[in-house]
Amino acid sequence: MKFGYFDDHNLEYVITRPDTPRPWSNYLGRADFGGVITNNAAGYIFYKSADQGRLTRFRFNSAPAELGGRHIYLRDREDGDYWSNAWMPVGKSLDEFQAECRHGTGYTVIKSVYRKIRCEVRYFAPVGGTFEVWHITVANLDNRNRRIQIFPTAEPQCNWNATDDTKNLQYSQYIAQTRMVDGILDIASNPNMPEDPDNFTNKDQQRHSFFALAGIEAAAFEGDLASFFGPYGTYAKPHALLAGTCGNRHAYGDMPFAAFQVDLEPEPGESVTFAALFGVGEAESEGRRAVAAMDSEQAVEHALGEVKEFWQSRLEVLSAETPDPGFNSMINLWAPLNNLMTFYWSRTASLVYAGERDGLGFRDSLQDLVGSAALVTAETRERLELLLTGQYANGGCKPVVQPFNHHPGEEEPPEQFRSDDAMWFFNAVPAYVKETGDLAFYGKTLPFADGGEASVFGHLRRAIEFSLERSGQHGLPCGLFNDWNDCIRLGESGETVFVALQLRLALDEYAAIADLLGEAEEAQWARTRLE
Amino acid sequence: MKFGYFDDHNLEYVITRPDTPRPWSNYLGRADFGGVITNNAAGYIFYKSADQGRLTRFRFNSAPAELGGRHIYLRDREDGDYWSNAWMPVGKSLDEFQAECRHGTGYTVIKSVYRKIRCEVRYFAPVGGTFEVWHITVANLDNRNRRIQIFPTAEPQCNWNATDDTKNLQYSQYIAQTRMVDGILDIASNPNMPEDPDNFTNKDQQRHSFFALAGIEAAAFEGDLASFFGPYGTYAKPHALLAGTCGNRHAYGDMPFAAFQVDLEPEPGESVTFAALFGVGEAESEGRRAVAAMDSEQAVEHALGEVKEFWQSRLEVLSAETPDPGFNSMINLWAPLNNLMTFYWSRTASLVYAGERDGLGFRDSLQDLVGSAALVTAETRERLELLLTGQYANGGCKPVVQPFNHHPGEEEPPEQFRSDDAMWFFNAVPAYVKETGDLAFYGKTLPFADGGEASVFGHLRRAIEFSLERSGQHGLPCGLFNDWNDCIRLGESGETVFVALQLRLALDEYAAIADLLGEAEEAQWARTRLE
Repeated sequence: MKFGYFDDHNLEYVITRPDTPRPWSNYLGRADFGGVITNNAAGYIFYKSADQGRLTRFRFNSAPAELGGRHIYLRDREDGDYWSNAWMPVGKSLDEFQAECRHGTGYTVIKSVYRKIRCEVRYFAPVGGTFEVWHITVANLDNRNRRIQIFPTAEPQCNWNATDDTKNLQYSQYIAQTRMVDGILDIASNPNMPEDPDNFTNKDQQRHSFFALAGIEAAAFEGDLASFFGPYGTYAKPHALLAGTCGNRHAYGDMPFAAFQVDLEPEPGESVTFAALFGVGEAESEGRRAVAAMDSEQAVEHALGEVKEFWQSRLEVLSAETPDPGFNSMINLWAPLNNLMTFYWSRTASLVYAGERDGLGFRDSLQDLVGSAALVTAETRERLELLLTGQYANGGCKPVVQPFNHHPGEEEPPEQFRSDDAMWFFNAVPAYVKETGDLAFYGKTLPFADGGEASVFGHLRRAIEFSLERSGQHGLPCGLFNDWNDCIRLGESGETVFVALQLRLALDEYAAIADLLGEAEEAQWARTRLE
Repeated sequence: MKFGYFDDHNLEYVITRPDTPRPWSNYLGRADFGGVITNNAAGYIFYKSADQGRLTRFRFNSAPAELGGRHIYLRDREDGDYWSNAWMPVGKSLDEFQAECRHGTGYTVIKSVYRKIRCEVRYFAPVGGTFEVWHITVANLDNRNRRIQIFPTAEPQCNWNATDDTKNLQYSQYIAQTRMVDGILDIASNPNMPEDPDNFTNKDQQRHSFFALAGIEAAAFEGDLASFFGPYGTYAKPHALLAGTCGNRHAYGDMPFAAFQVDLEPEPGESVTFAALFGVGEAESEGRRAVAAMDSEQAVEHALGEVKEFWQSRLEVLSAETPDPGFNSMINLWAPLNNLMTFYWSRTASLVYAGERDGLGFRDSLQDLVGSAALVTAETRERLELLLTGQYANGGCKPVVQPFNHHPGEEEPPEQFRSDDAMWFFNAVPAYVKETGDLAFYGKTLPFADGGEASVFGHLRRAIEFSLERSGQHGLPCGLFNDWNDCIRLGESGETVFVALQLRLALDEYAAIADLLGEAEEAQWARTRLE
């Protein structure tokens, strides 16, 4: 079964059949604002953290495929027939409905043709912004005027904390509020609580997101989920699409929703373009600014161009031409692109990672740096410094560093350590230095997580000491809470061959670095232990 | 809009229109095994805890109403048309589809008539069993033979821990396994881990549930969710119903499912009856025993009779006849029935309470006892003793007691206390004693949560001392973490008028009890403090 192909010229993967066996996802945005989007426009948007800054709802484990997302519904006012621009959730027969999805570098384009109406939606998050743009073009391919409605929709969470939103309904169902502010929908969580911008993990604070149209006027809006879907509606069968109208309702408690209704009457061959914007902040301020920034097709095109440039400039750093086009495509585009995504998000946001691990997995992130060092050198250094401050004075490390909740010098050490975490420094730090030649980096002083400080070189020594001080009866490092195999608790006396190999590499690397730095005694110290 | 009526003769509430504005739920089972079921058969089943012993999946906050539950699908083999016995999830037009739901005392009956096929399902959990019975009767109202298929279905969790099942997909998607054992489907969670029966809260242990038919042979089964629904199927549109067959697949990792396909060809006027059983334990043992216990219509009728008797015997204790039939209905049936349900579950399981508060809310449970004392006297005493052991030696109480995870004498006190918890003893304990005349109860010795012990009378004194020792500058008790108003943190110095009133009642009651017990000094001590 063939579902698509690589379009290397446009740096896109093209999905030509929407009924893929599993959802096929892409990533929008960057480290601190982003989203997951599938070939059927399912997925979610988050700010800083998929778990604690979740803006829109997505039910993980929704095996029956009622998936929330960025659904753009269309409706023919002549007979009430309705569909979604992505094949799902309405799911029209594929005999009548054509769809194409292009997953690109930081953007996704989903196109459909159904009953002589063509719709194309380009999803992306402008560089430096904290909002998404859904750039929508509807074209009449018919030879007569058509009366068409478009309903862009998003399902905001009641609380940005994903677990609370899922489980703590007694609380979360009473804290959401939507209201229209000059055509922009403000979606508030806890509007009666103070803001607490310095404590991102405080879920009981006032927060806002917004939903807006740019380039067109809405005929109606919907701010209340129950009103949009009706009591027994589903994503496939929303009440508003059956009725052909949004209810102009605000949510006040209960569930918020974000939808606009746009009524069009395009002439034969005519196409209409506008944008829907969903982002972080209040309608009055950030909402207005986003609308102003995306006030023309040129502005949107420019912003999308910047997104492509953002990613493609990072991918151009490294290229290879071989006789195998498949290998070229993999090595020049898809492998580095995915390496960068995992560098930015460290696997915390996807269709599977639901925020259960919220932050930068320590060992994972150090591994990712080996690849990113060549692609995003300055960002790699920044991340490396962050992770070095996740090391405690005893040489062990935090299993997860949350950039939005990390306070070097003030972190309590955990009761148990993983034995491999600090060892990955010996892959990551030399990778960065070899890329840059920046030997001075080894001299940079950085704090430990629980207090005290050392040069980067000192951090590395502490990592080795941590392993040496925790050796078992055969002289091999002990596994502690676990080594790279998360499933075995080797404890304080069980030894790990895996970390022993890492330690050998560490001592080798450390001696080589010491040589470079002219630290003969340190080199000697490491080499003695190698014997 | 009229959706139903009270049928006081049958002690049922009858819902005659299935499209109620919100789901209308009833409770099956008892304290340690039960479930929530709506008028459209949505809901879930749990063992001991809706949070940590969740057997079947239910996505809270599913505002678009794709709700998991105990769905019984039917299909006409002649033209492939299919429906659900409850109106939802398939949701046939109400012009063609008739439904009636009867919520009774510990059971729910859902009936439908569609295209001359009548189906009736009676849902209940036998007294003393840890399984549910779905007793299914399908009747041909047509004047010709009909070829009909029935698909009873349940959606088991991967992990009994509801939060893990919702969020920790990297783990939970790899631990489920289903297999057929002599016609009974065994659904295993963590089959490769040891059992840990003494630690109910250990989510990483082997557990089993089962799904079986009694009284009929299945034509096929389904143990794999993806196979039943297909990649883009929904509850409204499962692949198996489109295809007219279950796939006979086992789950091995990924998502389990539990369904049987029964093929019937009833003659005009003929009806066929059988049961589907879902319960706790392995197919080989508990599954077989359940099937053997429900091996005839007589056995099922007897078991349902016992359920009615279980509840109705508890409700008969208290009755009143007034000129107002509505008041009679409320006071004789619905108020006490709901009082008992909240007594057993303490609001931890419902369509809203998703396990976020998992256990017996302290103050709530003490309040519930005032009502239950007359209805279930022995069980009230048992609960009262449990809650008294949730009091610490300093007189303060645990905010929540988890019966499956409570170890009196070994519980660490919390850092902060709620000021009202212990005060509710003065409502609950006298209510029990007044009902029974059991003055000796005050002399019963019970441990404190953190060690030490006292008579019930001593527990009461400690409760008063706790308040007196935590008074503010006007001599009123301080609010501490909170009083009955959960939203105000009055702290160590802010005073609470509410608890002051409670304290006054407490001193009054204590003095009266002391009089009854001939403890003149104690009575004097309390009365002095009242002045």
